[in-house]
Amino acid sequence: MHHDLRREEDSLGQMSLPRTCLWGIHTERAIANFPISGLPLSHFPEFIRALGWVKKAAARANLRLGVLDAGKARVIEEVCDDIIAGRWHEAFRVDMIQGGAGTSTNMNANEVIANLALLKMGHSPGDYGRMHPNDDVNRSQSTNDVYPTAMRLAIVAQCEGFGAAQRRLADTFAERAAAFAHVRKIGRTQLQDAVPMTLGQEFAGFATTIREDVEIIARLSGLLLEVNLGGTAIGTRVNTPDGYAEAAVEELARVSGLPVKLATDLIEASSDCGAYVTFSGVLKRIAVKLSKICNDLRLLSSGPRSGFNEIRLPAVQAGSSIMPGKVNPVIPEVVNQVAFQVIGNDLTVTMAAEAGQLQLNAFEPVIVLNLLQSMRILMQAMDTLAKRCVRGIEANVAQCEGALENSLVMATMLVPHIGYARAASVAKTALSEGSTVAETAVRLGYATADEVAAMLAG
Amino acid sequence: MHHDLRREEDSLGQMSLPRTCLWGIHTERAIANFPISGLPLSHFPEFIRALGWVKKAAARANLRLGVLDAGKARVIEEVCDDIIAGRWHEAFRVDMIQGGAGTSTNMNANEVIANLALLKMGHSPGDYGRMHPNDDVNRSQSTNDVYPTAMRLAIVAQCEGFGAAQRRLADTFAERAAAFAHVRKIGRTQLQDAVPMTLGQEFAGFATTIREDVEIIARLSGLLLEVNLGGTAIGTRVNTPDGYAEAAVEELARVSGLPVKLATDLIEASSDCGAYVTFSGVLKRIAVKLSKICNDLRLLSSGPRSGFNEIRLPAVQAGSSIMPGKVNPVIPEVVNQVAFQVIGNDLTVTMAAEAGQLQLNAFEPVIVLNLLQSMRILMQAMDTLAKRCVRGIEANVAQCEGALENSLVMATMLVPHIGYARAASVAKTALSEGSTVAETAVRLGYATADEVAAMLAG
Amino acid sequence: MHHDLRREEDSLGQMSLPRTCLWGIHTERAIANFPISGLPLSHFPEFIRALGWVKKAAARANLRLGVLDAGKARVIEEVCDDIIAGRWHEAFRVDMIQGGAGTSTNMNANEVIANLALLKMGHSPGDYGRMHPNDDVNRSQSTNDVYPTAMRLAIVAQCEGFGAAQRRLADTFAERAAAFAHVRKIGRTQLQDAVPMTLGQEFAGFATTIREDVEIIARLSGLLLEVNLGGTAIGTRVNTPDGYAEAAVEELARVSGLPVKLATDLIEASSDCGAYVTFSGVLKRIAVKLSKICNDLRLLSSGPRSGFNEIRLPAVQAGSSIMPGKVNPVIPEVVNQVAFQVIGNDLTVTMAAEAGQLQLNAFEPVIVLNLLQSMRILMQAMDTLAKRCVRGIEANVAQCEGALENSLVMATMLVPHIGYARAASVAKTALSEGSTVAETAVRLGYATADEVAAMLAG
Amino acid sequence: MHHDLRREEDSLGQMSLPRTCLWGIHTERAIANFPISGLPLSHFPEFIRALGWVKKAAARANLRLGVLDAGKARVIEEVCDDIIAGRWHEAFRVDMIQGGAGTSTNMNANEVIANLALLKMGHSPGDYGRMHPNDDVNRSQSTNDVYPTAMRLAIVAQCEGFGAAQRRLADTFAERAAAFAHVRKIGRTQLQDAVPMTLGQEFAGFATTIREDVEIIARLSGLLLEVNLGGTAIGTRVNTPDGYAEAAVEELARVSGLPVKLATDLIEASSDCGAYVTFSGVLKRIAVKLSKICNDLRLLSSGPRSGFNEIRLPAVQAGSSIMPGKVNPVIPEVVNQVAFQVIGNDLTVTMAAEAGQLQLNAFEPVIVLNLLQSMRILMQAMDTLAKRCVRGIEANVAQCEGALENSLVMATMLVPHIGYARAASVAKTALSEGSTVAETAVRLGYATADEVAAMLAG
Repeated sequence: MHHDLRREEDSLGQMSLPRTCLWGIHTERAIANFPISGLPLSHFPEFIRALGWVKKAAARANLRLGVLDAGKARVIEEVCDDIIAGRWHEAFRVDMIQGGAGTSTNMNANEVIANLALLKMGHSPGDYGRMHPNDDVNRSQSTNDVYPTAMRLAIVAQCEGFGAAQRRLADTFAERAAAFAHVRKIGRTQLQDAVPMTLGQEFAGFATTIREDVEIIARLSGLLLEVNLGGTAIGTRVNTPDGYAEAAVEELARVSGLPVKLATDLIEASSDCGAYVTFSGVLKRIAVKLSKICNDLRLLSSGPRSGFNEIRLPAVQAGSSIMPGKVNPVIPEVVNQVAFQVIGNDLTVTMAAEAGQLQLNAFEPVIVLNLLQSMRILMQAMDTLAKRCVRGIEANVAQCEGALENSLVMATMLVPHIGYARAASVAKTALSEGSTVAETAVRLGYATADEVAAMLAG
Repeated sequence: MHHDLRREEDSLGQMSLPRTCLWGIHTERAIANFPISGLPLSHFPEFIRALGWVKKAAARANLRLGVLDAGKARVIEEVCDDIIAGRWHEAFRVDMIQGGAGTSTNMNANEVIANLALLKMGHSPGDYGRMHPNDDVNRSQSTNDVYPTAMRLAIVAQCEGFGAAQRRLADTFAERAAAFAHVRKIGRTQLQDAVPMTLGQEFAGFATTIREDVEIIARLSGLLLEVNLGGTAIGTRVNTPDGYAEAAVEELARVSGLPVKLATDLIEASSDCGAYVTFSGVLKRIAVKLSKICNDLRLLSSGPRSGFNEIRLPAVQAGSSIMPGKVNPVIPEVVNQVAFQVIGNDLTVTMAAEAGQLQLNAFEPVIVLNLLQSMRILMQAMDTLAKRCVRGIEANVAQCEGALENSLVMATMLVPHIGYARAASVAKTALSEGSTVAETAVRLGYATADEVAAMLAG
Repeated sequence: MHHDLRREEDSLGQMSLPRTCLWGIHTERAIANFPISGLPLSHFPEFIRALGWVKKAAARANLRLGVLDAGKARVIEEVCDDIIAGRWHEAFRVDMIQGGAGTSTNMNANEVIANLALLKMGHSPGDYGRMHPNDDVNRSQSTNDVYPTAMRLAIVAQCEGFGAAQRRLADTFAERAAAFAHVRKIGRTQLQDAVPMTLGQEFAGFATTIREDVEIIARLSGLLLEVNLGGTAIGTRVNTPDGYAEAAVEELARVSGLPVKLATDLIEASSDCGAYVTFSGVLKRIAVKLSKICNDLRLLSSGPRSGFNEIRLPAVQAGSSIMPGKVNPVIPEVVNQVAFQVIGNDLTVTMAAEAGQLQLNAFEPVIVLNLLQSMRILMQAMDTLAKRCVRGIEANVAQCEGALENSLVMATMLVPHIGYARAASVAKTALSEGSTVAETAVRLGYATADEVAAMLAG
Repeated sequence: MHHDLRREEDSLGQMSLPRTCLWGIHTERAIANFPISGLPLSHFPEFIRALGWVKKAAARANLRLGVLDAGKARVIEEVCDDIIAGRWHEAFRVDMIQGGAGTSTNMNANEVIANLALLKMGHSPGDYGRMHPNDDVNRSQSTNDVYPTAMRLAIVAQCEGFGAAQRRLADTFAERAAAFAHVRKIGRTQLQDAVPMTLGQEFAGFATTIREDVEIIARLSGLLLEVNLGGTAIGTRVNTPDGYAEAAVEELARVSGLPVKLATDLIEASSDCGAYVTFSGVLKRIAVKLSKICNDLRLLSSGPRSGFNEIRLPAVQAGSSIMPGKVNPVIPEVVNQVAFQVIGNDLTVTMAAEAGQLQLNAFEPVIVLNLLQSMRILMQAMDTLAKRCVRGIEANVAQCEGALENSLVMATMLVPHIGYARAASVAKTALSEGSTVAETAVRLGYATADEVAAMLAG
C-alpha cells in the first residue's frame, strides 16, 4: 500500500500523503488543525477564483522582473487559468474559519498549483525541487498581501451580480407601483390611520429605497479595489524585486478585469480592515431596508379578514400543517431572517476588524466568510423576493378604498381652514359617535356641507 | 487669592486646588483627563453608595486586623455613613467613562473620604499626614478589588427595585387579563388569522412572560454576589494582612445587608467579567420581551378604523402636530426604544468584557455605566408602561367578537372530522366566495348543518 | 419517463415528483421557495433526531388517546426509530433558513415519515389515503408546537457533549496549572508590570473560569426543557383530544430520555423566545471567556525574542508562507474567530426573538440555525484548543523568573512599611536609573538592606 | 397662588401651568410621559439649534407663499434667532428618549416659540389666539418632516468639528511619525516577531488610517443633506401650499448655511432611515480603527520591563492606588471604551432603523440620541488622545534597535537566496541554540559570512 503514498516534510517533521494528492503537507496539517465550521474554501468558488487571479498575476510580474524563469511562469499561469475556470475547486479543502491569518489558504493554493504544474510538466506531485510551492509559486509573495488581495477581489467580483439583483428587485417593485398607481388608500404613521396616499406611491417608495443602494454598493466596492499586493509580510516589500508591487497590481488588473490599484501606504494597508467594516455596514443597511419592506408587506397583507388586508401576496405553498387554507407570507419571512443573519454577521466582521494587532489582522478568515455569506444570502433573498413574492402581489382595491372613505384622517385636511383645535374636536366626536368627518364638521357648525366638501377635495 | 488654594503633589508633580476642595490631585487630574461622556459618577448614586459600603467594610476589617488605628477607622466609618446616606454625591465628579480600570473612581472616593475625615477631625483638607487617601483610606485595598466589588453591589442593590417594577408590570397585565377573560377574539400566527382565543389569554401570556424573569433576575444577581475584595491588585492578596479578605467580605455583608461572599479563585475573579455578560444578557432578554409585547400592543391597537383595533390604549397626549384627533401608542413606542438601547448597551458590555487582558479588565468603567443605565431605563420603562398604558387599556369587544364570526379559522376545527385536504378546500372556497366556513362546508356536502355546528362547537 | 413520476396535489395545485421520492409536494415547494443558505436540514442531524422523537411521541400519545389506530401508530413509530438512528437524514432537504415558522420542516418530516411508513406497509409513496402526512403523522400537532419542541430538544441533547468539551478543556488547563505551579512570574494589569504570581495561578484561573460555565449550561438547558407540545397552533390545544398535551410530553420524555415538561402557560410558550435569548447569551459568555483566554495565550507567547515570551505554544504548522521558522498561535486565533462568530450569531438570535408577533415567532428557523451552529463551532473550538494547543504549552521558566527579579513591582510591597508616596519615588527613581527597587530603597534611605529584604519577602 | 397659574387645554382635557412657563400643555404631558433617560433635549444644543433653523425656514417659506402674515412671521424668525443663538435651551425639557416619533420635541419647540413670540409681542404666554403653536408656528409642517430634518442638520453641523478633530489627531500621529522616522524596530504579525520596519512607518500608518476617514465623513454627511421638509405627515405634502417644500428647503439652506436639498421621493424619505445606518456605520468604522490603534499603543508601551516597551506614553496621572510608580495607558484605555460604546450605539441605531413601519419610523428619537452621543464622545476621545497621549509619546530607541539585532526575522531575507526550506532550518536552529541568524547560516554552510552580510543588507 505504501507505494501509493508520498512523503513530504516541513519544519515540524514528515508526513505521508496519497501519491496523487493535489495538496501538500501544509494543507494537510491545516485540515487537521481547523475542524471548525464544516465549510471548506470550495464553498465559495468566487474566493478560489480570486486566489487564481492573484497567483497568476504574481507569476507574470515575477517573470517580467526576471525572478521566475519563463517555463515555470508559463505553467503556473496555465494552472491558474484552470483554477479560475473552476476545474480544481475540490482541492481547496481547508476550513473557511482558520487561524494563521490565511496562511493555510495561501499554502493550499501554493501546493495545489505546484502539484498541478508538476503534473503538467510530466512530473509527480510532491517533486518540489522542480516546482516549489513557496520558492516558485509564492515567489515575491506573503500570505499577508495575497490573502487580503484575494478577499477584496472575491467581494468586488460579486458586486456586479449583487447590483443586478438589486436592480431586478427595484424594477419589480416599480412595475407593481405602476400597476397600483390609482389605488387610493390610507397612509399610516405609528400604525395609526394618517392621511391618504396611493398604493402605487407606497410601492414606488420601496423601489426608490432599493435602487438608491445600487450606486452605493458600486461606489464602496471602490474602497476594496485598493490592494496591498507586493507589500508582502508587513507592507515593507521585503523579498520582492524592485518594481514588483506595481507590476503585480498592473498584471492583476489585466488578469481579473477589475480596476485594482496599489494602496499608497502599504504598511497601513497590511493591517487595516476599515474597508471591510464599511462594506459590511452597507450590506447591513440593505438588510435593514429589506427587513423593513418585508415587515410592511406582511402588515399590509395581514388578514385575510382580521387584518389590514390591503394587498394579497401570491401563495407559494400551503401555509400551515394544522390550519387548512391558511396562506402565510413565507417569502417576506425568509427575507427578514436573512436580514437578521446579515446584521449578526456584521457584528462578527466588526469584532474581527477591531481585533487586529500591530502589522496584521489575523482574523481576516472569519471576515471573508461572513462577507461572502452575507452577499450570497442577500442576493438569493432579493431574487426570491422579487420572483416569488413581489411580482405576484395584487391589490385588494375594495379594502383600500373602502377604508379610506370610512376614515377620520380627513380631519387633517380641515386644519388649514378651521384650525387644529376644532379639527381635533371633529375627529374625536366622529370617532366616538361612529360618524364621518364631513357630517360631524357640519353638525358642529364649523362649515357648511359645501365648504367641507371643498376642503376635503384638497 | 492664593490663600484660598492648597498645594498637592503626586509622582507627576504639584498642583493647586481650592483650599476647601473635597477631592484631591488624583481626582483633579482625572477630571481633566476624561472629558468624555458628560456623565459624572454622581449620575449613579447607587454606585457611590456601594463605594461607601466597600470603604467602610475595609476600614472595619483593617481595624479588626490591627492595621488601622481605632481613631482613624471610626472617622472613616462615619464619613462613609454620610456618603452612603447621599450627603456628598456632588464630590464624585470623574466621568463615568474613564481609563485606568476605575483607579480614578477609587481615588476620588479615597480623597473625598480622607478630606471629609480631616474636616471631622478638625484639620484641613489636604493634610494627608493625618489621614492619607492611600495609606489609610485605601489600606489593604486596590482599585482592582474595590471597583468591581462596588460595581457588583451597586447592581445587586438595584435588583430589588427592579424586581418590584417587574412584578408591578406583570400584575397590571394580569389584572387586565382578568378583565378580558371573556372577550373572544381571533388568534394570529404570522400576522394571518389563525384560531380562536380570548383577549384574556393573550394578556395573561404577557403577565407570565414578565413574571418569569423576576426569578431569573433574582437568581442571577447571585452570580454578582461573589466578590474579589481582599484580592487587591491581581488576586494574590498582596499588601493585606492575614485573614483580611475574609474579614472584609464579612464586614461588607454586614454593612450592605447583601449576602456577598468571597470568590473562591481570586486570581480568576480579578479579571473575569462573565457575570456582567450574563447579567447584561438577562437585561437583554427582558428588553426583547418588552419590545415584543409593545409591538403586539401597537398592532392590536392599530386603527382606529383601518387596523386590528382590538384594544384601545389610553390617550396620554395628543398624537400629532398636524393630524388632529390622532392618538398614538407613545408609551409602547418609548419602551421599544428603551429595549433597543439596552440591546445596544449589551453589545458594549460584551465588547468591553472580551477586551480584558491578563490579570485585569481595564474596561469595567464602560461596563458599569451601561449596566446601570440599562437597569434604570428598563425600570422606568416598565413603570411607565404599567401606569400610563397597560392599566388603562380597554377591549374593543365588538371588533374582537365580530371578526371571529366572520373568520375562516373555523375550518381548522373541521380537520379532525373531514380531514386536512377537504377542510382546506372549504377555507379556500369560503374566502373566494365571501361566505362563511359553516355554510360552505354544508354546501360542498362534507357534513350536514348540524354536524358542522357540532364540529365548530369544539 | 412519466411512469417514473407520481402526482401530488395541495391547495395550490398539482406537481410531479419522482415516483420513489421520499418527500412530497410541500417539501418540494419549500425546496424551491428557499434557496438561501445552502445548508439543508440534514446539516444538523441532532435536529432531525429531535424531530423523530417528537413525531414518535405524538404517535404514541395519539394511540393512547384513541385517535390513531394501532397499526398506523406502530409503523410511524418504527419509521421514527429509523430516523432517530440516522438512516434517512438525506431526505431532510429544506434549507435551514426558511419562511413559514418551520412549517416546511414539519411537513418535510410528515411527508418523509408518511412515505417511509407506506413503503413499510407495502404501499407506494404518495398513497396518502393509507397514511396521510397531515391527518395521520401530524395528528394532534401543529408546526407551532412541533417545531419549537424539536428545537429545544436538539439543543438540550447537545448539552451533554458540550459540557464534556468544557470539562476536557478545563481539565487540560488544570493539568498545565499543576505543571506550572512553581513558575514565578510577574502579573500584569493594563499590560503594565504589576505584582508577582505564578504561571500556575494564571492557568488555574483559566480552568476555573471555563469550569464555572459547565454548571451554568446545565442549569440553563433546564429552561429549554419546558415545551409547548400539545398547545398546537397558538397554545389553546385546538384539535387535540383531552389530555393529549400531557400524554405527548410524557411520551416525549420517555422517547428522548430527557426530562421535558409541559409549559404552564401554553399561550405564552407558543410565542416566547426568551429561553433562546438566554441560552444564546450563555454561549456568548463562554465565547467571551474563550476569546479573552486566547488573547492571553497569544500575548504570553508573543516573541520569541521581542515579546512577553513566557510560554511556548506547540507548533502545529509552519507559520508563514514567507517568513521561515515563524511559528504562529494559529489555534488560539481560530478560537478567537469562533468567538466572534458566536457573538454575531447571538445578535441574530436576539433580533429574531424580538421580531416575534402575537401568537407566534415566525423566525425560529434562523434562531435554531444560529444556536446549533454556535454550539457546534464552540465545541470544536474547545476541543481543538485543548488538544492542539493547551496540552502542549510549555513554560519559558528563565524568562518568567528573570523578568521578575528585574522588575519594579517590588515597590508595591514596600507600601505597608514606608507609605505610598515614598514607595512611588523608589519606583520612579529605579526606572529612570535602571536600578533595582531594593538598592534604590536603600540608597534613598528609606530602610536598611536587611529591612528591605524582609519587606520584599512578603 | 392660582393667579400664578394659567390653564391650557388639549383634546385630552385641561391642565395648569405656571403663568410664565415657556412651554405648554403638550410639553408638560410629554415631560410626565417620558421619565426615561434623564437626558433632556437641552443635553444636545446642536439639536435645538437645528430645530430653530427648521422653524425659521418654515416661517419664511410660509410668509413667501402668503399663508402666514408678515408680523407673525417676523416675530417667529426673531425668536428662532434667539434659540439658534442658544438663549433658551433650558426650555427644551422633554427626555431625548420619547415615544411619538418626535412629536413631543416638535411641540416643545412650537410651544416655546409661540410663548416667546407672545412675550415679544407684549402678550402673555398661553394666549394662543394671537400666536398658535400649531396653526402658526407649525404651519405647513408635521413632526414627520420637521423632526428628521432637524436630526439631519444637527448631525451634519457637527461634521465640521468632527473632521477637524480627525485631522488634528492624524497630524499629531504624522508629527510623531516624522520624529520616529529613523527608529528601526521589529514588525510583528500575529504577535510574533516578523520583519524590520521603522517606528515612523508604524505611526505614519496610524496617521493614514485616521486621515482616510476625514473624506468619508464629509462624503457621507452628503447623504444626510437630502431632507423631506415639506413632505409633512407622510410625504404627500398634505396641508402645504403649492411650492412650499421647495421654498422651505431653499430657506433652510440659507438659514443654516448648509447645502440641504429636497429628497426626490418624499414618501420614501419620510420613513427611510438608511442614511442613519450608513452614517452610524462610518462612526463605527472610525471607532474600530481608534480601538485598534489604542490596542497597539498599549501593546507597544507594555512593560516597563516585562513587555514590548518600544514606546513610552506620557504619564498623565498616577496609575494605581496600590502599586506606586505604576504608569498606566489610561488615555488609550478611555478611547477603547468610547469605541465599545459607539459600536453598541450603532446596534441601537440599527435596531431602531429596522423597526420602522409603513409611512414612518417612530423610533427616530433613540437614533438621534445615539448618533449625537457617538459623535460627541468620539470627538472628545480623538482630541484627548491627540493632546494627552500621542503628542507626548517617546520612542525607547535602545529597546527598539536592540531587539532587532537579536531577532530571528533576518532569516526571511535569506529566502530569495537559499530558499524557504533552508532558511527555515536556519531560524529553527538559531532559536534553539540562542544564536544569531547570520552565524547560524554560516555554520550550517549555506553561505559565507560575506554572502550572508550582503543578503541581510537587503
